[in-house]
Amino acid sequence: MKHSFRNDYSELAHPRILEAFSSVGNQQFESYGLDKCSANAASLLRKTFNAPSADIHFISGGTQANLVAISSILRPHEAVIAPTTGHIFVHEAGAIEATGHKVCTREGHNGKLRVVDIESILDEHTDEHMVKPRLVYISLSTECGTVYTKSELTTISEFCRANKLFLYIDGARLGSAINSPACDLTYSDVAALVDIFFVGGTKNGALFGEAIVICNDKLKSDFRFHIKQHGAMLAKGATIGLQFETLFKDGLYDELAEHSGKMAKRLADGIRTLEFEFLFPPETNLIIPIFTEDVANTMHQSYDFYDWQKFENTVAVRLLTSWATTECAVDEFLADLKAHRG
Amino acid sequence: MKHSFRNDYSELAHPRILEAFSSVGNQQFESYGLDKCSANAASLLRKTFNAPSADIHFISGGTQANLVAISSILRPHEAVIAPTTGHIFVHEAGAIEATGHKVCTREGHNGKLRVVDIESILDEHTDEHMVKPRLVYISLSTECGTVYTKSELTTISEFCRANKLFLYIDGARLGSAINSPACDLTYSDVAALVDIFFVGGTKNGALFGEAIVICNDKLKSDFRFHIKQHGAMLAKGATIGLQFETLFKDGLYDELAEHSGKMAKRLADGIRTLEFEFLFPPETNLIIPIFTEDVANTMHQSYDFYDWQKFENTVAVRLLTSWATTECAVDEFLADLKAHRG
Amino acid sequence: MKHSFRNDYSELAHPRILEAFSSVGNQQFESYGLDKCSANAASLLRKTFNAPSADIHFISGGTQANLVAISSILRPHEAVIAPTTGHIFVHEAGAIEATGHKVCTREGHNGKLRVVDIESILDEHTDEHMVKPRLVYISLSTECGTVYTKSELTTISEFCRANKLFLYIDGARLGSAINSPACDLTYSDVAALVDIFFVGGTKNGALFGEAIVICNDKLKSDFRFHIKQHGAMLAKGATIGLQFETLFKDGLYDELAEHSGKMAKRLADGIRTLEFEFLFPPETNLIIPIFTEDVANTMHQSYDFYDWQKFENTVAVRLLTSWATTECAVDEFLADLKAHRG
Amino acid sequence: MKHSFRNDYSELAHPRILEAFSSVGNQQFESYGLDKCSANAASLLRKTFNAPSADIHFISGGTQANLVAISSILRPHEAVIAPTTGHIFVHEAGAIEATGHKVCTREGHNGKLRVVDIESILDEHTDEHMVKPRLVYISLSTECGTVYTKSELTTISEFCRANKLFLYIDGARLGSAINSPACDLTYSDVAALVDIFFVGGTKNGALFGEAIVICNDKLKSDFRFHIKQHGAMLAKGATIGLQFETLFKDGLYDELAEHSGKMAKRLADGIRTLEFEFLFPPETNLIIPIFTEDVANTMHQSYDFYDWQKFENTVAVRLLTSWATTECAVDEFLADLKAHRG
Repeated sequence: MKHSFRNDYSELAHPRILEAFSSVGNQQFESYGLDKCSANAASLLRKTFNAPSADIHFISGGTQANLVAISSILRPHEAVIAPTTGHIFVHEAGAIEATGHKVCTREGHNGKLRVVDIESILDEHTDEHMVKPRLVYISLSTECGTVYTKSELTTISEFCRANKLFLYIDGARLGSAINSPACDLTYSDVAALVDIFFVGGTKNGALFGEAIVICNDKLKSDFRFHIKQHGAMLAKGATIGLQFETLFKDGLYDELAEHSGKMAKRLADGIRTLEFEFLFPPETNLIIPIFTEDVANTMHQSYDFYDWQKFENTVAVRLLTSWATTECAVDEFLADLKAHRG
Repeated sequence: MKHSFRNDYSELAHPRILEAFSSVGNQQFESYGLDKCSANAASLLRKTFNAPSADIHFISGGTQANLVAISSILRPHEAVIAPTTGHIFVHEAGAIEATGHKVCTREGHNGKLRVVDIESILDEHTDEHMVKPRLVYISLSTECGTVYTKSELTTISEFCRANKLFLYIDGARLGSAINSPACDLTYSDVAALVDIFFVGGTKNGALFGEAIVICNDKLKSDFRFHIKQHGAMLAKGATIGLQFETLFKDGLYDELAEHSGKMAKRLADGIRTLEFEFLFPPETNLIIPIFTEDVANTMHQSYDFYDWQKFENTVAVRLLTSWATTECAVDEFLADLKAHRG
Repeated sequence: MKHSFRNDYSELAHPRILEAFSSVGNQQFESYGLDKCSANAASLLRKTFNAPSADIHFISGGTQANLVAISSILRPHEAVIAPTTGHIFVHEAGAIEATGHKVCTREGHNGKLRVVDIESILDEHTDEHMVKPRLVYISLSTECGTVYTKSELTTISEFCRANKLFLYIDGARLGSAINSPACDLTYSDVAALVDIFFVGGTKNGALFGEAIVICNDKLKSDFRFHIKQHGAMLAKGATIGLQFETLFKDGLYDELAEHSGKMAKRLADGIRTLEFEFLFPPETNLIIPIFTEDVANTMHQSYDFYDWQKFENTVAVRLLTSWATTECAVDEFLADLKAHRG
Repeated sequence: MKHSFRNDYSELAHPRILEAFSSVGNQQFESYGLDKCSANAASLLRKTFNAPSADIHFISGGTQANLVAISSILRPHEAVIAPTTGHIFVHEAGAIEATGHKVCTREGHNGKLRVVDIESILDEHTDEHMVKPRLVYISLSTECGTVYTKSELTTISEFCRANKLFLYIDGARLGSAINSPACDLTYSDVAALVDIFFVGGTKNGALFGEAIVICNDKLKSDFRFHIKQHGAMLAKGATIGLQFETLFKDGLYDELAEHSGKMAKRLADGIRTLEFEFLFPPETNLIIPIFTEDVANTMHQSYDFYDWQKFENTVAVRLLTSWATTECAVDEFLADLKAHRG
């Protein structure tokens, strides 16, 4: 097999992450995230997001971040609003329901939820015979590879605040969004507009690890109990702190996200040149072109990637680039695609 | 502060673990634990435990291993039997109860559960007004630093099999037990006597990671769903597989456990020479001597360790050694202790 | 206000139910459903459903029956398939999710799920990143007032058995279905085709109470633990047993269901005569005609009923009859409707 | 068998309860507890308890009341403090744990929790590795048949308020306590000293039904969602409202409780005269005398009652009287006891 475009977590970790591990030797750290690396990393994130009073917690994966954060917020009868493409609704094996909460969905547009979607769910949920929607979950960038604009996110944020809904962002690919030319949001904007979100490390160069950022004071109390109760508190918490310190102390996080975005753009431009269309606008390191069935099948013989959706004679395929994807790998894919297009 | 004896997870990881990470470069791996490193590690564990048909899954921490495994086994009305000192009962923030299950306890002896304890719980639970005990949880080595002998574990195992109880071992410190002179159990014995257990990496040199070993066929189906649902399935599963491969391919796991055991023995022998007693027999890398209050307070000024239990004028303190503890650090502690003993 | 068509549980209980209570005086009964009335009622139900080996349990309400039964069956990662109009998905305040399980839905047709709907959900759920569908939930009669035919139910049953899915019927209105001219199913058919279901008392003359009937041996074990754990085991279990004894010992159950069906038919026929259409075919004691907005508003001034769905200038309204609805009340409604039709 | 002293819920319902049902005929009621009977009953309870702003909800049983109320209050990491004899810890099949919460226990004294017990649990729970105790559960009267005095309850109440613990009373037998000569508490005292409690109907003459009384404003919001989500919202809510109206409109509740208390006192006095001792002071309608094994066995041949605890040659047995127990039945028991005492 040639280079895999299956996902952005195929490679273990960026070399600078591994160097950071090696550099500490047999040093002893406080356990459970109370170490100095985690404290430094939290400071760097507070600065990056211009959120000096945010609480920051590090945990090992995205599904875990979602379930710990969401279940810490909701009372038993409260529910989450999400787009039907939302990771928590589709690909987390019912993790949110396993903590007792229903996920109410609407289709949205291009993987993005709109105020009209949220509104229609609120209109439907009027009494105690139904759950009570209390939190809006969106992903940035989305599972469709798209981004919310500042105007879109602001509108949602204002609606949520007016309707007593908490706003949560799954930022497994937050770097790819912020570094996307299609996205005019800054890190500060995100922290200012939402109540709680997480910043993904796993999909942007870390060995593993996500940083949960709690902006709304009401959501801060006793958060460490929830982390512990879900088995999400690493004994060697410094392991994640150290990685985020490395990613945020001198711009590595943006550097890696920007690179993977550029590789995806190179890939998307090449695909468009070959006259294929896209299911959703290609805005980040995840793009979904539509190939004919024949082309898709042939490309599958050399490359690893997911089929997103099958249509009559075509198939939308999901291609991802990472911090480790090279121009060379992209160009090889494009050359093969051109050859097989017939 | 001088060397910390607070726990066996203060240092990040053994250098050979970090070398393993560095050695793979930008290689691409299958995700979610379906990679070749995890497969190799599983093979090595099956060989070590002489359990050719065991299912093996890697996850990131001990509390997570306990809650994923136990909740995958029990129906909603079923309960766990554990000693009152059991980690799941004391120090997991109600993780088992959060999955819906009661933990029924007995004091036991020296941190160990006995058949008489299990029996008395069964006698009490006779109808549907109470929970139904279904699984016995024990730790090896225990939270008190003691070990079960082969005879003790065999007796429990036979009782469980005769009474339709699954037997589960929390092996966060399994290495320390197997390498303890007080323990005549082999790895093979463990796998032969219990239904499911986990082998701890975090407390024996890994950056993080535990290996769940399922011996009983009845407990194998759909286990990966449970891992995923609890957010315990690492995207970069190779990260743990690689570590266990490193620990088990040429004896590193035993080497590290043996070392920490030796350091603890050196420490215990020295403490005994100074005429302090122990709360429990010091059998592994966790020992609990009883100091006078004065001595404990003075030692706390230079060393980091937990107080286990306070008595009238004395205090039982918990001291742990690790793969990284040096003879030098032990001797310095003993010298200081001697000096302060008065 | 005149007669209410809001639901079929507005009146407390049929007089013969109350007489049964009075007749027992200060007699002492075994508690928790182990009394002789419950045993007699269970025998009568086994006979009615031609299910001599079924296990039968009485509990107080429909939502409770659904949540106890469904959560007793599923492992944590398993999910329910239901139509989007299913009571468990819409009107039980997230009760199923509160027990940890996701409900996967399809629109279906006229409130009924079809094999094609179930199939499309199975096709989508292929690995451990998603929940595992394990039980199909349907209502008979449905929340839209429609019924499954014998052919429809047989097809679903066969598909479920071929695909390792349990089939569950919410029979809150089972009497109305079996006594509907549109339904060619017998009580025996129901028990033969499904794994577990409940027979509704509350909506057919009882003060309260539903009978859970477990046909599939695999679902029988320890069921009373689940009832107790959810607080659904009445201390005075005879209270429900006595009611079901009364309903089934000499045909009262069918008599009441047949009456409410007839009243609904009289109502539907009258409405059709006035040239209103129906949203779904009116087949049971729940019918959903479509009125103009004006007519609906005017009728609301004298009658109590739900609006089911609003359209541009019309509104589908839900009308229910019960064992206590009189011809007189129906005719008065029809006369008023005719007068307001303009 | 002669009269059963097994429990206080062997007889169905007091005749005046049944008359109330019959008196309403085919009247139509609002459903789900929003009817006028429930409103009237709530008013009567607010008056009885001198709690004009309390929220009152009716549900069908005691275990259900406990689980709905407690799970509505606690966040996922929070726990309940209870005596080891507490109904929620022993006899509810793990219902509280099934909602995700741990129950932390102490032995207490005579079935009663003391401040020293609560304090020792708080001292032990200091960080996020353990659950966070948040609610104190006690029963009045207790499972041992004893009562708290006003001074005892006041001390606990003050301690709870000073330590941010909610205080909850399981009042399944509240009538028996308030009407006990050993108890100087009034209904008003109870409401003034605790945050939330329930008043038992099932064990004092009702067919079934308990009234949850919420005194603390912080615990009131969205309570009906929790009732619904646990399947505890009766469609025909008037059924319980009507019973509580009947019990509280002209003193029936106290009348019945006083009667059963008197019968228990007659029984206890007679037993004491025969020179048997009691395991706990006999203060209510539940008494626990200690018989020799021979006497207990012989009495079991004619009477139904539980063995509470076995000792070497004796056995403590639990005897209960109800509103329906007659002097005649008591005297017959005493005569038989005297005859068998030898």
